[in-house]
Amino acid sequence: MADHTSGGEVAALAEAVRALSARLSEVEDRLAITQLLATYGPAVDSGDAETAGGLWSTDGVYDSGVATFEGAAGVAAMVGGEMHQGIIAGGSAHLVGAPRIEVRGDRAVATCYSQLVRHDAERDAFYIWRTTANRWELAREAGGWRVTNRLNRLLDGGADARALLGAAADAAAPPIGEGR
Amino acid sequence: MADHTSGGEVAALAEAVRALSARLSEVEDRLAITQLLATYGPAVDSGDAETAGGLWSTDGVYDSGVATFEGAAGVAAMVGGEMHQGIIAGGSAHLVGAPRIEVRGDRAVATCYSQLVRHDAERDAFYIWRTTANRWELAREAGGWRVTNRLNRLLDGGADARALLGAAADAAAPPIGEGR
Amino acid sequence: MADHTSGGEVAALAEAVRALSARLSEVEDRLAITQLLATYGPAVDSGDAETAGGLWSTDGVYDSGVATFEGAAGVAAMVGGEMHQGIIAGGSAHLVGAPRIEVRGDRAVATCYSQLVRHDAERDAFYIWRTTANRWELAREAGGWRVTNRLNRLLDGGADARALLGAAADAAAPPIGEGR
Repeated sequence: MADHTSGGEVAALAEAVRALSARLSEVEDRLAITQLLATYGPAVDSGDAETAGGLWSTDGVYDSGVATFEGAAGVAAMVGGEMHQGIIAGGSAHLVGAPRIEVRGDRAVATCYSQLVRHDAERDAFYIWRTTANRWELAREAGGWRVTNRLNRLLDGGADARALLGAAADAAAPPIGEGR
Repeated sequence: MADHTSGGEVAALAEAVRALSARLSEVEDRLAITQLLATYGPAVDSGDAETAGGLWSTDGVYDSGVATFEGAAGVAAMVGGEMHQGIIAGGSAHLVGAPRIEVRGDRAVATCYSQLVRHDAERDAFYIWRTTANRWELAREAGGWRVTNRLNRLLDGGADARALLGAAADAAAPPIGEGR
Repeated sequence: MADHTSGGEVAALAEAVRALSARLSEVEDRLAITQLLATYGPAVDSGDAETAGGLWSTDGVYDSGVATFEGAAGVAAMVGGEMHQGIIAGGSAHLVGAPRIEVRGDRAVATCYSQLVRHDAERDAFYIWRTTANRWELAREAGGWRVTNRLNRLLDGGADARALLGAAADAAAPPIGEGR
């Protein structure tokens, strides 16, 4: 009788431990994605092309709204390129804001704002050159979460940025219509 | 004897699992509140009045420092209103910063900064129109955390914003004196 | 036989609970450090010198890039001092961005950006006076995490800020070379 009770208690405990582990895994996923987004700025503003590129999946995409970079290698090449190096030489901060995160198994979407803040030596101050709506689509890979697609759209009042932000709750649908 | 030991071990494990679950619940509360705050900007900048309003409790309040909106319906009406639609049509980002969060059972307070950044088409850049101290008071409802009161005060050097920020650790006391 | 099995199951469960608790502790460390960073701005913008100073270890250091403040007492004195009081009287927001956090046992490093945003009454707007790369080195003390060293370097294109950001993944090495 005591054995029987104890066996039932142990089985219930094992189930409770499994449930806790699943809850904790979702929390860890959210923090890992938050950490990934917080790694982007320091990597690109220090010119660390390898770390920046390594946030992307091998065949991931970064569609900045101005240009599209293909794969981890494409992102790394952008960071090492002349335009980006010129921006950081003048003093820059690529600020990525607090994300709204949707996790669906091994896929996730993080929606947030980013800003490119630049130094204005003449005025001894800084100014916001770009404020952009961001959609980061991510996949869980062997080495952890990686970006499969980052979409940026300038917040100039246009429909693209609004559609992107409006899809924040939607981890599946494409945020911007066909024909881009 | 072996059974007795085992029974004690099982009871101790059950207690450990309960303690872990309570710790994890507080972590989940913090992330849920962080997620709620990160949902506000994308909702209002995409003009999604229903999502923005739905962050508030049915009888919650949003005192923006300029106007007071009553309930989820009042917040939704603000988002759908002419003034807000004009702001987002020109290009806007409602940035909500990283919050300091105090959780007390089914109540919480999150203190942070928000900024309203707007597009300046002529200068091909963005500027900060408003930087504001925020106090978000929240309650746990059947559907999750909801805003019962959001207080904003402009950071123009006045006493109200400073009092609000100074009450960040205080989940109970009203942050700004009587007589408002 | 049943006892033996049950004993093994209980031991395995105890091990699983220990592993969960260790995972949860790392999550809690990350959130505690995030909370500490989110406490700094509201403390200094409300002029709460004691709360701001109390984030530092008794013998911690804040090297702002312009001046060095020694210990919790030194940080508190800075907040209470004439220059800082003048800044907050004009309207200020000390924004601390989302950190990349590395935890190594009882030590941690958080790398992020901070901005000092100030009111411009004449233009009825706000401007960014300072955008700065931040390295927060922390230690776990009896009362929780405390800052042992905060290093700020202005993002004016100089090598110091880039070196600091480039060391974000490195919880051990000094981020800026000798001879500063």
